[in-house]
Amino acid sequence: MSFVIDGLQYSNWSESIFRQIRAGGLDAVHVTLTYHETFRETVARLEQWNRWFERFPELIFQGFTAADLAHARATGRTAIFFGAQNPSCIEDDIGLVEVLHRLGLRFLQLSYNNQSLLATGCYETEDSGLTRMGREVVAEMNRVGMVVDMSHSAERSTLAAVDQSTRPIAITHANPAVWHPARRNKSDTVIGALAETGGMLGFSLYPHHLQGGSTCTREAFCTMIARTAERFGTHFLGIGSDLCQDQPDSVVEWMRTGRWSKTVDYGEGSKEAPGFPPMPGWFRDTRDFRGLGEGLRAVGFAPDEIAALLGGNWARFFASSFGPALAAGKMEGRAAE
Amino acid sequence: MSFVIDGLQYSNWSESIFRQIRAGGLDAVHVTLTYHETFRETVARLEQWNRWFERFPELIFQGFTAADLAHARATGRTAIFFGAQNPSCIEDDIGLVEVLHRLGLRFLQLSYNNQSLLATGCYETEDSGLTRMGREVVAEMNRVGMVVDMSHSAERSTLAAVDQSTRPIAITHANPAVWHPARRNKSDTVIGALAETGGMLGFSLYPHHLQGGSTCTREAFCTMIARTAERFGTHFLGIGSDLCQDQPDSVVEWMRTGRWSKTVDYGEGSKEAPGFPPMPGWFRDTRDFRGLGEGLRAVGFAPDEIAALLGGNWARFFASSFGPALAAGKMEGRAAE
Repeated sequence: MSFVIDGLQYSNWSESIFRQIRAGGLDAVHVTLTYHETFRETVARLEQWNRWFERFPELIFQGFTAADLAHARATGRTAIFFGAQNPSCIEDDIGLVEVLHRLGLRFLQLSYNNQSLLATGCYETEDSGLTRMGREVVAEMNRVGMVVDMSHSAERSTLAAVDQSTRPIAITHANPAVWHPARRNKSDTVIGALAETGGMLGFSLYPHHLQGGSTCTREAFCTMIARTAERFGTHFLGIGSDLCQDQPDSVVEWMRTGRWSKTVDYGEGSKEAPGFPPMPGWFRDTRDFRGLGEGLRAVGFAPDEIAALLGGNWARFFASSFGPALAAGKMEGRAAE
Repeated sequence: MSFVIDGLQYSNWSESIFRQIRAGGLDAVHVTLTYHETFRETVARLEQWNRWFERFPELIFQGFTAADLAHARATGRTAIFFGAQNPSCIEDDIGLVEVLHRLGLRFLQLSYNNQSLLATGCYETEDSGLTRMGREVVAEMNRVGMVVDMSHSAERSTLAAVDQSTRPIAITHANPAVWHPARRNKSDTVIGALAETGGMLGFSLYPHHLQGGSTCTREAFCTMIARTAERFGTHFLGIGSDLCQDQPDSVVEWMRTGRWSKTVDYGEGSKEAPGFPPMPGWFRDTRDFRGLGEGLRAVGFAPDEIAALLGGNWARFFASSFGPALAAGKMEGRAAE
């Protein structure tokens, strides 16, 4: 039995999207709960999810541990695991790491494009690595079992996080920069560091991360995965689709500009194309996960590799990442320092 | 008429201290409202001050503009001007700059020892200068008339703030590192940049900033001021006593550790001496401002220089700093860019 898992989505959730996720056969999705929201605002997002869990119990439930993957499969539902794309949710308070872990937060990005209290984002001109608080927070995340996600962080900070963390880290949604040199995509140095340390890279289908943008073909995308696997191995690769279905453009404005600027920051977009870019025709929503499997087969992946890429690797990572450090140390043979 | 002004205090306020301030003849004090407090917590501190203003109207009132200095003198009271030692009070929200300025915040440190969302603090190992948000916030502070204070910031960040700010900045409480190489004291490069740009340096009487600590003599302190004035001029120098009277040691723990760490950070102290250090015998409280004047005279300063050092320079800086950018540009002949 192999699980199918999407390593990142941030859609404008609805019954329709939940039904697509089921139609796509996904056992779990890592869902972004917040970007720049404060702790209290993050809790309000969680409350909205609690209402969805209460309303659609036949489709979704909140995931807390890797055992929820089997529970999802057994009950024909999808487990929703939460993450945050910026550490705003812990504000300046290390104690909120454990509180949010208890509430179900399983991934936390140390920065989102800009400098945070913890680390540098990929849009800053200077990258100073982990801050004093950043090192403390990584240790606390390691202790409780919250995954360090460096998807939107700058390179030196990312390598510092790999080095500082006693447990493997993730880049839930990005592609190799060698394939498409977007500022959000990752160097071979970073990808190699993930491969060597038991981390994870989720390939992104967000058009700004794709060679050719919205016109990128499924074959080109799957060939990029094959090249990455040839170079670094398949063991640490998954999908992090970055699907933002049905979101109004005001949401991408919030992601990019938050409350930190009075001017518009276009981020990966531009003044001419400020909104969400259109998805490639072969990946409109989660139902196209099935097509991804066909695309991977067409570029030469074997069935067991396809199973690993579409969720098996994420499942193994979930199992070793979401529990307290000591248990994980035993499971992985990689003790917390 | 020359004003007497203390450029920074953070005492455990009481009627007794307010009466000492009056006995010292101070027309104004820049008072730290908050360190790591959120916006809402900062407002709660302000509420406490509003109660003191209501209770002791014959001793103190809140200062908003430089005109309040003359009002203080005319009515025999002390004007209290507020500042924050860390930008926690604006959280991640640039809109809170104008809101806090309206409430009376006149000084804002861009960082306090650690990396903030805006700039690097002096205890970080890496100093990346101003962040993307930092540059936006400095422009907004320039616009509304809130002074950039870099007392606890790292050197590169400080020089970047001097450069980025269209209006002069302040280091409200620190001494030359050449005299006492504490991490909080400032290099000649930084002091020179303040002198050249119309900024301000307030000499600190906090023992960790003094050569010899609590045993530093008044003569040594005043000689250090004389050396600084000889080298850079007297025009940008004042006092920022950093008095923390009657504070329990729990307050210095809060200053140093806030909510960012689960371990103890001793900052300028040590495991053996974790609390507030004792003040020098010749500067126990604000009443000793009068003795400072005598000390400055003894090392050779002329009466007009002493008046400038004890408040005249701060008064001129207040006048050009606390109003909107355009008015200040006219006053100073230094237009906002």
